[in-house]
Amino acid sequence: MSIKTGTGNFFEDFQLGQVIEHATPRTVTEGDVALYCALYGSRFAVQSADSFAMDLGYEAAPIDDLLVFHIVFGKSVPDVSLNAVANLGYAAGRMVSPVYAGDTLSSRSEVIGLKETSNGKTGIVYVHTVGQNQRGELVADFVRWVMVNKKDPASPAPDAVVPDLPESVAAEHLAAPTDLDMGEYNFTLAGSAHTWDDYAVGEQIDHVDGFTVEEAEHALATRMYQNTARVHFNQHTEKDGRFGKRIVYGGHVISICRSITFNGLANAFKIAAINGGRHVAPIFAGDTVYAWSEVLDKMELPGHPGVGALRLRTVGLKDRNAQGFPYKDGAGKYDPAVVLDFDYTVLMPTRI
Amino acid sequence: MSIKTGTGNFFEDFQLGQVIEHATPRTVTEGDVALYCALYGSRFAVQSADSFAMDLGYEAAPIDDLLVFHIVFGKSVPDVSLNAVANLGYAAGRMVSPVYAGDTLSSRSEVIGLKETSNGKTGIVYVHTVGQNQRGELVADFVRWVMVNKKDPASPAPDAVVPDLPESVAAEHLAAPTDLDMGEYNFTLAGSAHTWDDYAVGEQIDHVDGFTVEEAEHALATRMYQNTARVHFNQHTEKDGRFGKRIVYGGHVISICRSITFNGLANAFKIAAINGGRHVAPIFAGDTVYAWSEVLDKMELPGHPGVGALRLRTVGLKDRNAQGFPYKDGAGKYDPAVVLDFDYTVLMPTRI
Amino acid sequence: MSIKTGTGNFFEDFQLGQVIEHATPRTVTEGDVALYCALYGSRFAVQSADSFAMDLGYEAAPIDDLLVFHIVFGKSVPDVSLNAVANLGYAAGRMVSPVYAGDTLSSRSEVIGLKETSNGKTGIVYVHTVGQNQRGELVADFVRWVMVNKKDPASPAPDAVVPDLPESVAAEHLAAPTDLDMGEYNFTLAGSAHTWDDYAVGEQIDHVDGFTVEEAEHALATRMYQNTARVHFNQHTEKDGRFGKRIVYGGHVISICRSITFNGLANAFKIAAINGGRHVAPIFAGDTVYAWSEVLDKMELPGHPGVGALRLRTVGLKDRNAQGFPYKDGAGKYDPAVVLDFDYTVLMPTRI
Repeated sequence: MSIKTGTGNFFEDFQLGQVIEHATPRTVTEGDVALYCALYGSRFAVQSADSFAMDLGYEAAPIDDLLVFHIVFGKSVPDVSLNAVANLGYAAGRMVSPVYAGDTLSSRSEVIGLKETSNGKTGIVYVHTVGQNQRGELVADFVRWVMVNKKDPASPAPDAVVPDLPESVAAEHLAAPTDLDMGEYNFTLAGSAHTWDDYAVGEQIDHVDGFTVEEAEHALATRMYQNTARVHFNQHTEKDGRFGKRIVYGGHVISICRSITFNGLANAFKIAAINGGRHVAPIFAGDTVYAWSEVLDKMELPGHPGVGALRLRTVGLKDRNAQGFPYKDGAGKYDPAVVLDFDYTVLMPTRI
Repeated sequence: MSIKTGTGNFFEDFQLGQVIEHATPRTVTEGDVALYCALYGSRFAVQSADSFAMDLGYEAAPIDDLLVFHIVFGKSVPDVSLNAVANLGYAAGRMVSPVYAGDTLSSRSEVIGLKETSNGKTGIVYVHTVGQNQRGELVADFVRWVMVNKKDPASPAPDAVVPDLPESVAAEHLAAPTDLDMGEYNFTLAGSAHTWDDYAVGEQIDHVDGFTVEEAEHALATRMYQNTARVHFNQHTEKDGRFGKRIVYGGHVISICRSITFNGLANAFKIAAINGGRHVAPIFAGDTVYAWSEVLDKMELPGHPGVGALRLRTVGLKDRNAQGFPYKDGAGKYDPAVVLDFDYTVLMPTRI
Repeated sequence: MSIKTGTGNFFEDFQLGQVIEHATPRTVTEGDVALYCALYGSRFAVQSADSFAMDLGYEAAPIDDLLVFHIVFGKSVPDVSLNAVANLGYAAGRMVSPVYAGDTLSSRSEVIGLKETSNGKTGIVYVHTVGQNQRGELVADFVRWVMVNKKDPASPAPDAVVPDLPESVAAEHLAAPTDLDMGEYNFTLAGSAHTWDDYAVGEQIDHVDGFTVEEAEHALATRMYQNTARVHFNQHTEKDGRFGKRIVYGGHVISICRSITFNGLANAFKIAAINGGRHVAPIFAGDTVYAWSEVLDKMELPGHPGVGALRLRTVGLKDRNAQGFPYKDGAGKYDPAVVLDFDYTVLMPTRI
């Protein structure tokens, strides 16, 4: 009689070059879109209205890039990070083919790096995770690395391999849509007259709004992504854990911040890349999230008429508003209010 | 470098005759229908079952009239009432063309009245808000008026214009469907044998059930409507506000009451008009809502065979049941339990 | 002027052989599927992905069997159990034709047994409830029995009729799909390599995960099922009730447990029968649910190549994990942690 229950992978279970096909493909539907809207109140017009999206040349309103990301990411959790002691980072994330209601997403990961930590009890695993649709088209990919427990501290360390990762996704690797008719973009319906041209590198934007997290909301969201990380769902164990309460999935905080950025970035109609991100501090039910952004870079996109890219840092804050743009002190230490430091690239219409 | 963040309009920003096209068109889907059902437990058969609706001649189950109303209303909030100190009233609301899953709603408002208040610090703005679908068909319109702060108390008052508003929408202005085959209406499946003929003017109905509001529920609903009014979402600021807690969107209370009225008004298959309404007192998470209704008027609808109209007052109560039909005392003062005084017109099948 | 408000049926209102057609047919949509996923985090591949289901020969991903069950059940509540003092049991439940998004479910019940209880104040009503789709095809049926108050204790007792009910649904009565191409079943995407052949009668599985219930979640779920039982929704009355708080719908606990069983039973791709079940103790918001299962029986299904049936007992626990498989003591008394004792039959692919 075999053991039927999975326990997740430990550091020794990973091998360089190993490809893990993750379980449970998932058809994304208009139901997920509605619930995503209800969870975050997102108002970006391309994702909200079929008519707006179709005027630009989309088949229909595409699924929100972060909803796609969370689903692709969620599938990797049972295989990659169920025994993780820390999610250390991600890089080189790209949102590629648009996803529409009715598409089925699946996800696989390749182990691209392994490094035992100095104490010999844990190791860092680097994976390249790829999400694709039912036709095998790439919809998203990204690298992430996690610190995972060893099953047996005495097992030998593998040769250390650390992948070379870009600081940000270069303009030529952005999967910007090439066939959009940006002349049809309606700035009034989109909610702002500001084009890509109006933003300056170094510009900081206080997104004003705050948004209080509820236990039922983050749990609904995280289950919608079929993310099984236990710390989000089980108060009976978490009451005795490090914080005494359930921890909100970091991706939930990213989606809250993205929604808040609408006020100031209403025309950032697509997330094209996730360059990196750090969940600086945990968020719990009852906390109120605020956000501000800084323009890190501006990129022209030759071959994509009417579209430019902005590399942004969006900083999420907890229980304080964004006045004064709290971030790091002179020694590089984060302000105690900072919960998220998110580096990503958005697309925006240019002035015609 | 321009200011990118919107702050909403102040009293001086409005001009008589001005038309504001509101941002973020919204495709309404089966996902919204499912979530609306989960939020309110509505059981009206026409909106619940394609087969029931199609037997009457609808293309499919139409979207609930209040879901349409909340979405059209929500779009107007960032432009009309973000700086409102009070939502004073609404009138002349009509639900016109049926909306189906897949339709995209957009919304615009015309300023039809302006009047500075006597203290010179605020003014009353009257708008006529119109919601339409992707084919430009009218789906809903209504008038509402709000008290808005002036940016500068010293700015001059505009000429006072106050629109002439009807006490209720007259029968000839009701957009009742003309082509329904009411002979196919199945009273058993609808849940009640009572037809329009069975109701009498002055009749009062205790709808019995009570329904406790949760923080996550009203926030999910209000974000689903893309309504951005801040008092509903931000506990960090509201803890220092007038009530110390987040205020539930008044429309959420209307939808709760409508669902509760099923027990007694199961055949009120469509809201045709919103004649007026007053949110008498705020509702907070943890409060339990009850409701009772009174038949204010009965209207025959010539040209709409098999359909009659009932003008109703539905009174929402907080933390007490509807026994004794609490409303106003002799001096016209509301009973302390009353939270909603809602005047609207429903359609109901007549006896064949 | 007639009484418009329904009060539900009392014991005297039921007659042997009576058929009650329940109100409010309900179109099940992709919206319900999304919300069901968000409520329970279910990961069974057949219900999650159109592509996975279509590879086996389904038209699309079928609606989760328990979602169908809860909707069919919910319709019977206003007529059968609104005045119930206890839900005593159910038996002979079968999930028959697959339900797809867009199908409309309706429900009717026949009274198949009546027995006054010895105190003369209540009686037991047995109903056979049948759910069907818009084409009249049987999608689910089951027997349940409830103890219902008499309106008048003096009214005479009917002749006692107690139906003969099977301990479990026999293999030949299971509505297993006959036309699936199980050779296409992808065990990697399904999340487990274990086939029907790998399970042994008497085998016990600890499903490991725990899941904390929130007030908003169970209320959303129960309203989605249009289940009107008042104890789930009204804190204003329940604060003075037997427990001082709202009681979670028992079906919500069943769905939580089913989702938890994925870890250990990932290939149990369909619930074919509900043999019986007992809600041993109530669940409230804040409680954490765990589950373990025992294989009660294994059945071959001649005529259904590649599919076998497992009869399972899944035991739900409250605020303690499943280590040691807590169930009953030697005297047959349940362990105080047990909340659910659920006996059902699942289908699973056999080894090829």
